[in-house]
Amino acid sequence: MYIGKVIGTVVATKKDNRLIGSKLMIIQPLNIELLPIEEPIIAVDTVGAGIGELVIIVKGTAARIAAQKMESPIDISIVGLVDEINI
Amino acid sequence: MYIGKVIGTVVATKKDNRLIGSKLMIIQPLNIELLPIEEPIIAVDTVGAGIGELVIIVKGTAARIAAQKMESPIDISIVGLVDEINI
Amino acid sequence: MYIGKVIGTVVATKKDNRLIGSKLMIIQPLNIELLPIEEPIIAVDTVGAGIGELVIIVKGTAARIAAQKMESPIDISIVGLVDEINI
Amino acid sequence: MYIGKVIGTVVATKKDNRLIGSKLMIIQPLNIELLPIEEPIIAVDTVGAGIGELVIIVKGTAARIAAQKMESPIDISIVGLVDEINI
Amino acid sequence: MYIGKVIGTVVATKKDNRLIGSKLMIIQPLNIELLPIEEPIIAVDTVGAGIGELVIIVKGTAARIAAQKMESPIDISIVGLVDEINI
Repeated sequence: MYIGKVIGTVVATKKDNRLIGSKLMIIQPLNIELLPIEEPIIAVDTVGAGIGELVIIVKGTAARIAAQKMESPIDISIVGLVDEINI
Repeated sequence: MYIGKVIGTVVATKKDNRLIGSKLMIIQPLNIELLPIEEPIIAVDTVGAGIGELVIIVKGTAARIAAQKMESPIDISIVGLVDEINI
Repeated sequence: MYIGKVIGTVVATKKDNRLIGSKLMIIQPLNIELLPIEEPIIAVDTVGAGIGELVIIVKGTAARIAAQKMESPIDISIVGLVDEINI
Repeated sequence: MYIGKVIGTVVATKKDNRLIGSKLMIIQPLNIELLPIEEPIIAVDTVGAGIGELVIIVKGTAARIAAQKMESPIDISIVGLVDEINI
Repeated sequence: MYIGKVIGTVVATKKDNRLIGSKLMIIQPLNIELLPIEEPIIAVDTVGAGIGELVIIVKGTAARIAAQKMESPIDISIVGLVDEINI
């Protein structure tokens, strides 16, 4: 699991039918000081995350589990909103 | 999921039989400013993407789901055409 | 499998229901000289690891096996506490 | 899928029994200008590739699908010979 | 598949029960000139590899196949001893 920030959305009209209804959010990966690391990626929202929110994302099969869409071509999903990071 | 641009195609006459009929597109991964990041990779087209189009790609099992060919040796697929990136 | 050190925890109140009860630990990946490498990541604890402890982590499906929660959106877990590194 | 060039072979007499009969080729990953990128890796040949040939490789479960050996510990395979790269 | 050298072992008394009996070896990833690349990782031995030996490792599900422990939280395993690298 990785920490990121929702910084936008992607609109794709022509896409795999099984992605219809999945909100595609642009996520800026962050380190634990909340500084950007790596390039932004696209994740399916599963918890109602809004722009600017800190989120936890997962990759691979875990992303389809999160979306409860095992037959959808999803490889990254948001699974939670970060309330606190305790170091 | 990742953003990329279709920049070409690969022709492979001698290949796994289960790849016959799958169009192999060369994808330049892009960041959200649409600048190139990383080296190009090869993805199976599942949405009718053309050269120059912005696409969303997925990796791993999600790529076989996208292609609806779970028994084909595919690890990256195009799953949608990008209409808008809203930051 | 990779070596890391538990350096904190993440609190996420709004999250996938199947993550309830899973403790989310912040792990600093370390090399075998125990120096930090890469940015910290978040792992589910499965062995009762505490802050400051050296741990072994796994990624992907192995992380769900470790958590004994195959239907939970987990992609990194702690699977052991490091007693000795013998070089 | 990724482009590479077959640059050698690896001989391993003592190995997992399920790898017997799988030819282990050393692959130099290439970019689309056919310049080397990253360090060479080892892939199972599934198409009769020879030294010096340009090939397409896949990773993960796709590699076991390519080898038609789902119960063999394979994580990278050659799935085709590259005839043309059209940019 | 990747080439590495066994450079040590890790002892973990408190760990997932399903790892009991699996020998955890520290592997230094090597390139084909046998020079170190990347940081060492931990792999389960499945072929009786000793310290200083050159080995082939696999990652992901292939690692559990190698260990013949599909229900064990393993993500990297040794699958063979390297006799020769022919370039």
